[in-house]
Amino acid sequence: MARGALCRAVGVFRLCRTSAPLTWTRFYSHTEPEPLTLRQQSGGIRRITLNNPRKRNALSLSMLESLRENILTDVDSDDLRVIIISAKGPVFSSGHDLKELTSTQGRDYHTKVFHTCAEVMTLIQDIPVPVIAMVNGVATAAGCQLVASCDVAVATQKSTFATPGVNVGLFCSTPAVAIGRAVPRKVAMEMLFTGTPISAHDALLHGLISKVVPEEQLEEETMAIAQRVCQASRPVVALGKATFQRQMAQGRDAAYATASKVMVDNLALRDGQEGIRAFIEKRKPVWSHKVDKAHD
Amino acid sequence: MARGALCRAVGVFRLCRTSAPLTWTRFYSHTEPEPLTLRQQSGGIRRITLNNPRKRNALSLSMLESLRENILTDVDSDDLRVIIISAKGPVFSSGHDLKELTSTQGRDYHTKVFHTCAEVMTLIQDIPVPVIAMVNGVATAAGCQLVASCDVAVATQKSTFATPGVNVGLFCSTPAVAIGRAVPRKVAMEMLFTGTPISAHDALLHGLISKVVPEEQLEEETMAIAQRVCQASRPVVALGKATFQRQMAQGRDAAYATASKVMVDNLALRDGQEGIRAFIEKRKPVWSHKVDKAHD
Amino acid sequence: MARGALCRAVGVFRLCRTSAPLTWTRFYSHTEPEPLTLRQQSGGIRRITLNNPRKRNALSLSMLESLRENILTDVDSDDLRVIIISAKGPVFSSGHDLKELTSTQGRDYHTKVFHTCAEVMTLIQDIPVPVIAMVNGVATAAGCQLVASCDVAVATQKSTFATPGVNVGLFCSTPAVAIGRAVPRKVAMEMLFTGTPISAHDALLHGLISKVVPEEQLEEETMAIAQRVCQASRPVVALGKATFQRQMAQGRDAAYATASKVMVDNLALRDGQEGIRAFIEKRKPVWSHKVDKAHD
Repeated sequence: MARGALCRAVGVFRLCRTSAPLTWTRFYSHTEPEPLTLRQQSGGIRRITLNNPRKRNALSLSMLESLRENILTDVDSDDLRVIIISAKGPVFSSGHDLKELTSTQGRDYHTKVFHTCAEVMTLIQDIPVPVIAMVNGVATAAGCQLVASCDVAVATQKSTFATPGVNVGLFCSTPAVAIGRAVPRKVAMEMLFTGTPISAHDALLHGLISKVVPEEQLEEETMAIAQRVCQASRPVVALGKATFQRQMAQGRDAAYATASKVMVDNLALRDGQEGIRAFIEKRKPVWSHKVDKAHD
Repeated sequence: MARGALCRAVGVFRLCRTSAPLTWTRFYSHTEPEPLTLRQQSGGIRRITLNNPRKRNALSLSMLESLRENILTDVDSDDLRVIIISAKGPVFSSGHDLKELTSTQGRDYHTKVFHTCAEVMTLIQDIPVPVIAMVNGVATAAGCQLVASCDVAVATQKSTFATPGVNVGLFCSTPAVAIGRAVPRKVAMEMLFTGTPISAHDALLHGLISKVVPEEQLEEETMAIAQRVCQASRPVVALGKATFQRQMAQGRDAAYATASKVMVDNLALRDGQEGIRAFIEKRKPVWSHKVDKAHD
Repeated sequence: MARGALCRAVGVFRLCRTSAPLTWTRFYSHTEPEPLTLRQQSGGIRRITLNNPRKRNALSLSMLESLRENILTDVDSDDLRVIIISAKGPVFSSGHDLKELTSTQGRDYHTKVFHTCAEVMTLIQDIPVPVIAMVNGVATAAGCQLVASCDVAVATQKSTFATPGVNVGLFCSTPAVAIGRAVPRKVAMEMLFTGTPISAHDALLHGLISKVVPEEQLEEETMAIAQRVCQASRPVVALGKATFQRQMAQGRDAAYATASKVMVDNLALRDGQEGIRAFIEKRKPVWSHKVDKAHD
């Protein structure tokens, strides 16, 4: 079977662009033969694809668990440098699977769904590599929360973002944790109270996403950002990401105390010194990607 | 007397568009026969109109007390679903009445003015229904604070926003509480230090307001947002609004713990389950607007 | 020697526009005869110029100490009302001097550099007069942090802003303290992870700077803002600036308690009462610029 045919057969045509050998991890739902998410990794870039377009990539408990597994697998490996989360089909994600939220499932099940969701969202911010959302379509409710939780988000012009839970009697209170910390308060409130979608352009304007591109450039622009991340030293990026989260939760003076100490620690890393030396010697740095110290 | 003539007589022509019976509450100042604010309610939408255009709708102590009463009256009634605050005349509000802030009144009176003002501003955020500012004109100082304090704000293109207190020797420190939490720090600082007005366009750009519309569409666009709020379940909106305020004051992890629990509670509401069922059954939900639980 | 020639000779042509007598303070580095920063003050406006264009105005320890001295000198004098920080040459500032950050200098020296840097950045926010960044060129790493730390920032269209430390193995963790508090989280993260510069237009959009102007208007627009600040009462501005920093670090209700008390104190200032009286009497206020109270 030709390569292209294989790709079309598994329905991940776009992922086949890379010439690297493909290794797939499939996370099957209990009832369906199709994997809920796809995972592929090449050249330091892990691609995770939400793969349930028929159900508008709903973040069911199984989908959330699949996503969690795909994020956490070998997350501390030096081979992993950045994660891209995208989705198959015209809907990035429609949020929770409402069929899981009826009274039939009961309070304990509901608790587990929201606990797992919050875990995945905070995980994205707490793992040592940057996570990029690559959005081509509609992202609503917990799907919009997923975009807001990623470190970087690139979206096509046709993408839209909404928190319409209020319309089905379930206010988007957990999405509001991520969205309220990403956009101005008034923008968040109008989204939450009315459920009205905002355009990619407005999402960019207000900081919900990082970049808007024409659909034909989505892949290229997202990969360009991922590749820039890959050019950096992994432990330096990891230290920077963790520090950003930590200092942003502190007051200004405590934040400076935290960050100033980290700068000194960063310089003490082998790759910290290599970078400075390479700059002075006007050459490209050669990263070890190791966390050991250069001196002290 | 014809209906139109009556409306013009009381000077609230615009409010007469609704076909619902009008019930007016007037709050008279001590010295004038005209009510300082007008209140009208119909179809779940309460309209409060600042009604002292000759004094540029200054937020005098009487005006603040009138506003507070108009907000608080029957605020827990199921009939109230959203509040719109607008103003008569070319100035939305010019802020505090400086004549009340001379040394003649004295420190205790000044304290009462600012205490009442802060109470009104925080009330707007703490009551169970969304509050929309509908702005057509100039909003300065505490008038700008009022816009910043509302959950949503729609403004006409000609509207402007400023904190010019510094020019009269009274730095807009209390307005800065609301404005500093609505727009980026540098935008707030330039407004506060220079007193220079910003356009509606810039106010939108920076998150001070939610939407800019041509003057002839102000009424229609604002009502459309209010009507969307009215289509939702009152206790669901109330829970969502209160949770937003609460979780935004917390760190991320505590915020997720708060919001996740609320999601489960929301699902346990009668209207929470009705919404989910209606969605699954592809029909419009029928809200009870009651806070009782569907199950446990 | 003619005045113009003198100005060209000392390389500060632009500063000579004022007709006030020039008094220069020079801060010499240990190795060079040229002062690292220039300081000039006239009509309440202090101009500090980064003056090491050959080294892209790197914020070496000497440069930071020079900047600190120029900021702190007579900072409590009534004659000082606003500070403008600008730079000579096409680069506003390229951030830390990487030659000072090699392992040769050692951990204690590195600690001193970052400690001094954080001190200068927080000083800018804590002194009693507003500080305006006037940017015409590239501002990177700690140079971008300097812009973010100023109260107001005016930049030319060609100016760009970046945090490229990650490329040399030194993640911009301390710049992230200022930048993360100025722009939306996602904008900050993309800048930090990729090092890619953002345009002046995008910097304005996201709140990193306050205004973008054509190059030929930079001087004029910045001076207009500075002169507006000079028209206000110094103790009123000082009280307002300090209160803004204080209340923004508090929760909403504590912030209102702080700010409400400050408003009453502000009114009790001699200039507070003068401003109100002048407004009522429809005349220009005559400020004392003194911190004494008008009554009580």
